[in-house]
Amino acid sequence: MSTAAEFAKTPEPPYYAVIFTSLRTNGDEGYAAMSERMGELAKGMPGYLGIESVRSADGLGITVSYWESEEAIAGWKVHVEHRGAQERGKAQWYQHYELRIARVERAYSGPR
Amino acid sequence: MSTAAEFAKTPEPPYYAVIFTSLRTNGDEGYAAMSERMGELAKGMPGYLGIESVRSADGLGITVSYWESEEAIAGWKVHVEHRGAQERGKAQWYQHYELRIARVERAYSGPR
Repeated sequence: MSTAAEFAKTPEPPYYAVIFTSLRTNGDEGYAAMSERMGELAKGMPGYLGIESVRSADGLGITVSYWESEEAIAGWKVHVEHRGAQERGKAQWYQHYELRIARVERAYSGPR
Repeated sequence: MSTAAEFAKTPEPPYYAVIFTSLRTNGDEGYAAMSERMGELAKGMPGYLGIESVRSADGLGITVSYWESEEAIAGWKVHVEHRGAQERGKAQWYQHYELRIARVERAYSGPR
């Protein structure tokens, strides 16, 4: 997904987070274009709140997307184009990933 | 915190995640040493489950630490040495951060 140095502008909790930690395989193999496309698609989904995404030079990345509800996450999970990306991800782009769905209960920011 | 390309070995949900997204200021100013020290300290705290941490070249980082309970997170928050690091973080190391506390409800991993 988008890797711009941006913070998600989320509302007051509660809302939901999808924490996706992944280790890429070597080579692009269409990954960058997919990532860009998935970021654009997610933005248009009902209940989407925002995204924060970082990948380091060693290939480890963390992308956290924020959603209004579990239903919104379920809708994104089964989006046909996203499902295609998930399949290619398992087959080709990721050595390993961990995906966690969490309910955000409190949030703080700084510095003032 | 530690930036080794590692996944946290977390148990079956539910458990808790602290999602810390931050944009660094320029220059080290003691940040790397603090980060290493905080990673070591956190590992010794009651209820600590693991950590995943990535920072990109543009200075944006996401660190997710995992904990057994909200009480464990509260204990880490008020650790005296960690409090000192939090104060220096606000004053010196971070342009901005967002900290979210979330309850992990489901988790998946891949590829098989």
